[in-house]
Amino acid sequence: MSSSKPLVLLKPEPQLRDRIFTAETLARLNTAFEVIDYEANPDDADFQRRLPEAFAVVGQPALDTAALEAATNLHAIVNVEGNFFPNVDYATAFRNGVRVLGCGTAYSQAVAEYSVGLALDIARSITREDRAARSGSEGLVSESTGDSILLRRASVGLVGFGNLGRATKALLEPFDNTVRVFDPWLPTAILEDAGVIPSTLEETLSQSTFVFVFATATAESEHLLNAEMLSLLPDGARLILVSRAAVVDYDALYERLATGTLHAAIDVWPVEPIPADSPFRGLDNVVISAHRAGGIPEAFESIGEMVCDDLELMKNGLPPARMQLAAPELVGRYRNKPVG
Amino acid sequence: MSSSKPLVLLKPEPQLRDRIFTAETLARLNTAFEVIDYEANPDDADFQRRLPEAFAVVGQPALDTAALEAATNLHAIVNVEGNFFPNVDYATAFRNGVRVLGCGTAYSQAVAEYSVGLALDIARSITREDRAARSGSEGLVSESTGDSILLRRASVGLVGFGNLGRATKALLEPFDNTVRVFDPWLPTAILEDAGVIPSTLEETLSQSTFVFVFATATAESEHLLNAEMLSLLPDGARLILVSRAAVVDYDALYERLATGTLHAAIDVWPVEPIPADSPFRGLDNVVISAHRAGGIPEAFESIGEMVCDDLELMKNGLPPARMQLAAPELVGRYRNKPVG
Amino acid sequence: MSSSKPLVLLKPEPQLRDRIFTAETLARLNTAFEVIDYEANPDDADFQRRLPEAFAVVGQPALDTAALEAATNLHAIVNVEGNFFPNVDYATAFRNGVRVLGCGTAYSQAVAEYSVGLALDIARSITREDRAARSGSEGLVSESTGDSILLRRASVGLVGFGNLGRATKALLEPFDNTVRVFDPWLPTAILEDAGVIPSTLEETLSQSTFVFVFATATAESEHLLNAEMLSLLPDGARLILVSRAAVVDYDALYERLATGTLHAAIDVWPVEPIPADSPFRGLDNVVISAHRAGGIPEAFESIGEMVCDDLELMKNGLPPARMQLAAPELVGRYRNKPVG
Amino acid sequence: MSSSKPLVLLKPEPQLRDRIFTAETLARLNTAFEVIDYEANPDDADFQRRLPEAFAVVGQPALDTAALEAATNLHAIVNVEGNFFPNVDYATAFRNGVRVLGCGTAYSQAVAEYSVGLALDIARSITREDRAARSGSEGLVSESTGDSILLRRASVGLVGFGNLGRATKALLEPFDNTVRVFDPWLPTAILEDAGVIPSTLEETLSQSTFVFVFATATAESEHLLNAEMLSLLPDGARLILVSRAAVVDYDALYERLATGTLHAAIDVWPVEPIPADSPFRGLDNVVISAHRAGGIPEAFESIGEMVCDDLELMKNGLPPARMQLAAPELVGRYRNKPVG
Repeated sequence: MSSSKPLVLLKPEPQLRDRIFTAETLARLNTAFEVIDYEANPDDADFQRRLPEAFAVVGQPALDTAALEAATNLHAIVNVEGNFFPNVDYATAFRNGVRVLGCGTAYSQAVAEYSVGLALDIARSITREDRAARSGSEGLVSESTGDSILLRRASVGLVGFGNLGRATKALLEPFDNTVRVFDPWLPTAILEDAGVIPSTLEETLSQSTFVFVFATATAESEHLLNAEMLSLLPDGARLILVSRAAVVDYDALYERLATGTLHAAIDVWPVEPIPADSPFRGLDNVVISAHRAGGIPEAFESIGEMVCDDLELMKNGLPPARMQLAAPELVGRYRNKPVG
Repeated sequence: MSSSKPLVLLKPEPQLRDRIFTAETLARLNTAFEVIDYEANPDDADFQRRLPEAFAVVGQPALDTAALEAATNLHAIVNVEGNFFPNVDYATAFRNGVRVLGCGTAYSQAVAEYSVGLALDIARSITREDRAARSGSEGLVSESTGDSILLRRASVGLVGFGNLGRATKALLEPFDNTVRVFDPWLPTAILEDAGVIPSTLEETLSQSTFVFVFATATAESEHLLNAEMLSLLPDGARLILVSRAAVVDYDALYERLATGTLHAAIDVWPVEPIPADSPFRGLDNVVISAHRAGGIPEAFESIGEMVCDDLELMKNGLPPARMQLAAPELVGRYRNKPVG
Repeated sequence: MSSSKPLVLLKPEPQLRDRIFTAETLARLNTAFEVIDYEANPDDADFQRRLPEAFAVVGQPALDTAALEAATNLHAIVNVEGNFFPNVDYATAFRNGVRVLGCGTAYSQAVAEYSVGLALDIARSITREDRAARSGSEGLVSESTGDSILLRRASVGLVGFGNLGRATKALLEPFDNTVRVFDPWLPTAILEDAGVIPSTLEETLSQSTFVFVFATATAESEHLLNAEMLSLLPDGARLILVSRAAVVDYDALYERLATGTLHAAIDVWPVEPIPADSPFRGLDNVVISAHRAGGIPEAFESIGEMVCDDLELMKNGLPPARMQLAAPELVGRYRNKPVG
Repeated sequence: MSSSKPLVLLKPEPQLRDRIFTAETLARLNTAFEVIDYEANPDDADFQRRLPEAFAVVGQPALDTAALEAATNLHAIVNVEGNFFPNVDYATAFRNGVRVLGCGTAYSQAVAEYSVGLALDIARSITREDRAARSGSEGLVSESTGDSILLRRASVGLVGFGNLGRATKALLEPFDNTVRVFDPWLPTAILEDAGVIPSTLEETLSQSTFVFVFATATAESEHLLNAEMLSLLPDGARLILVSRAAVVDYDALYERLATGTLHAAIDVWPVEPIPADSPFRGLDNVVISAHRAGGIPEAFESIGEMVCDDLELMKNGLPPARMQLAAPELVGRYRNKPVG
């Protein structure tokens, strides 16, 4: 190789190259780096052969201990899907000073806007009344607004205060809510500094009119929202469920929704695509959404920009600034699955 | 009369007394004032007889020159519906030092939240995809998000910057938009102080991805958004139409929507209820809403609170602080109609 | 006169024409109106002669009942100093539909910025330590910061919530304070909507670390902050006193300050200029300021802009939008004096 | 040792234990950890002996390669002073998975508030006019406000956009400034997301009325603000210099200030304490401050809280959340010196 540009191995699967890289960002990447594209040409032997000289791997390929020990020039493993899978020996990566970078923040704004949109939708039954209009049965003014409520000054609960919770909190600023947060991974001071009230899960559910679920899937959070917890939601509450299905007992959720005492907007499902015979499809007090919160063109394209920005910084001896550093303490605990 | 409390004549029609006064606010009103309730007992002769001693009239009864000249003790005409009708001789009221108070701000937050909810809905096709899910044809993740866009940093246009425009602008703060405003009643400095760009109607429509229509109905604003103006909206634009139907040429709007190059959420209609055969009911790129933006319980109840607050202030020799003073220059120009 | 432009009589004294009108705004005024300048040529007989045809009077000349009754074309009395003096028969003006406009908001931003600057100064003893440095006795780092406190999350009290209080509250937003307000002219809902806690004067003083005084001078507010009230301020409190001297008992204030348990920044004084032998000049825990909060070039020049904007609106049949409408209930109650 | 609590070695020098730990936080630390206090008992041999079993070192003791290789149980080196000194073999620490934590954010709010206070001070010459009042030569109202300017809508430049720049930007939000930032370590998107304009140093200086210097001292930033750069500041500009003295050529700064065309507030000095004969002491257009921006009681005490919070999180297998992770790329490049 006569090129003096650092080598980037691009293997974005299950992500798609052209979904995250526009022509412009791909050109930027190729300008600053020698890029070998294994989506176009999936030659695994070549990937293994090049690894020792690679500056960065962009994607989620399997990287076991031996591969990482051989990758003596590796500076970064750049995840472009959003979840950290267990096919990488992260401990070895960290010990060797390899940056493990995540792109989760690329989706945060999209998810936050969608979540607030869902909250306002079920606060005012926008979707329900549009459906009614399609059958000519809509109610004019007060005939259909009797259960409408303001978001302003409502009590809000956030289950989880990572990227998604923070981005959503930012959008809620003008609504002057009392915001309770349950997040067992964060100390009180972090939450207080963010202007929210550190709370137990029970307090968060029982004291909030709007509840947003943003919890990540771990062994501890499986069915965190079970029948007992769901029963704490006040009558008339609005539940916005965007992340993660594993956190909720959907049978219990259906039971509560069937009573009509709860409005919900649901974007994640235990089985996706949503089964044709899912009983949720028949509920009038639910907005049904098929995992649409984060994966929009602007979010995907920001991943490519983040990758370029951070690899260029690292090439110049500076720390990455846009993507998130994986935490050694957490990277093995996520049980999120790739989407779609 | 042995009572020393000032007299309030309550004649809220077409508003309903119990929609705007909770038991609590009605009790407050009765504590501070002698209240004669002409909704319960619609005796017009009695109303005319009491008028000379009345401190305030709450409602929209006809008050001609003679009635107002006779009302020598009158301090306030308190409109509780939201529109100023031409059944009052406002000039005489102003000359006699009668405060003419409007309750329009009571609806502002409800309309603003609804408007932002509609904007986020059509940015992300929430309602459309819920409808799809009801027929089992929804698209998972990227299959249905190809035309989804962020509100963040989008260019926004506001047609009209009165109470509704301002309340909506406040909710948009976290979205970091460039906001253009067309409002011929306001000087440049007011708009610049509010952080928006003073613009012509043409600029507002042609430069904005999200356009909110909040214009009041006057002779000048009739069919302001005609075919030519609507053609300025960029392909892919989102139009949120909440006030007032008279401002828009609906035939032209239908034509543009039928091309599929525009997403819209429509809350006001030239004829209400919406005719059963309205062709809008069949459009997939439209959210249909039956004049639901402002009239929600919390908005109605805030009217009663405003009335109590301001009448109590005036009783104590202070100026009203919550309701809006009608402007003599404008009060005769509105052509808004009562709703429902 | 063959001119068809409406007539404006300009008599700004004690304000100065060129302090409030730049060449540009004066040209604007002359373009839209025929302007007769009585500062340049103080001919009172001419003023009285022209009054019947005048569209607006800009300034604070005496206008008694007879003058106002004769001014049959008068649309506005435009106060350009900041205080409403008792030399105008306001009742007649209101009855005749004359707009009485005040320019108080022109100073709000200047006063608010100055007030926050003073608060941060005495929170951190910036001025005191600069003085120390001039004599070579400053303390490095911790030697002089032992009594420094953050504004962030501090409890704040505002005495008065008119233009100045609101403008200051806006600047405090990022500091995340608990803000108590004492303002007997405003109902609870106004204060709650503004995000502050409606409070008694006693609560406001005793519960706040930073107290800003913005009360207007009336019969009721004279020496509102007397020895007893001042004694409620906690030890270590910061008092920012920018409006109005009549509200405070300065002897009592001096006594409290002399104990060293209070830090203060004082911009208004019972006698101005501040007497040479004022004992306040010797206090190290005070920032001394000679009525400097509002009267800065940008504030003065905004008055001229407001005048042009609102007179142009009124010429076009629209209500004024920038200046403040005087309240008939209050205009006679102010006892503020002209400054300097 | 029969204790099962993880071992913390506390060696805060040059920081003081009781400045950063209140009785309460020290008790918290002792509850969760076995703490050996080497400030109370500076036994270096004991420190070396205990290191292999230590969970964390709190302080800045020298830790060379051998010490770190022996510290096989070490999870964190917790810097409690604010600067990373070159007495630690950071590369070995990172390779061994030791978290290197910094407390710089503890000072951010204090510095930001002080910086805004200084900016408002020199915008309005608060300190200068207080000094004048002490000699009886103050000017009333317009006599001393001719060079006063608003911060609102002023153009602002930030040299450096780390913790201090961001915290200051947050406080400026209500002032609606155009903010330019020069920070060569950050990509454009980070700055744009923060609502500032990425700029060269030349643009930042020449286009800004208020310039805040927050640059860290490195080889590259030494005398970044030399005579040529300082000459770019517009006449009447306000310079707020809080970090770091090495970044500025003070001789050139004095020359510019002596012309009277610049106002400055200076908190850091090439030699500290400020020499008694420093010519800056005689400048009337300068606020002199003796390194007082960050080191206030609330800032110091938050360090102790951060230490407790993060060590407790790490004890529970969670990542630290409050202190800042040192970047391997940068930790060796800082040339900041300990203060005072």
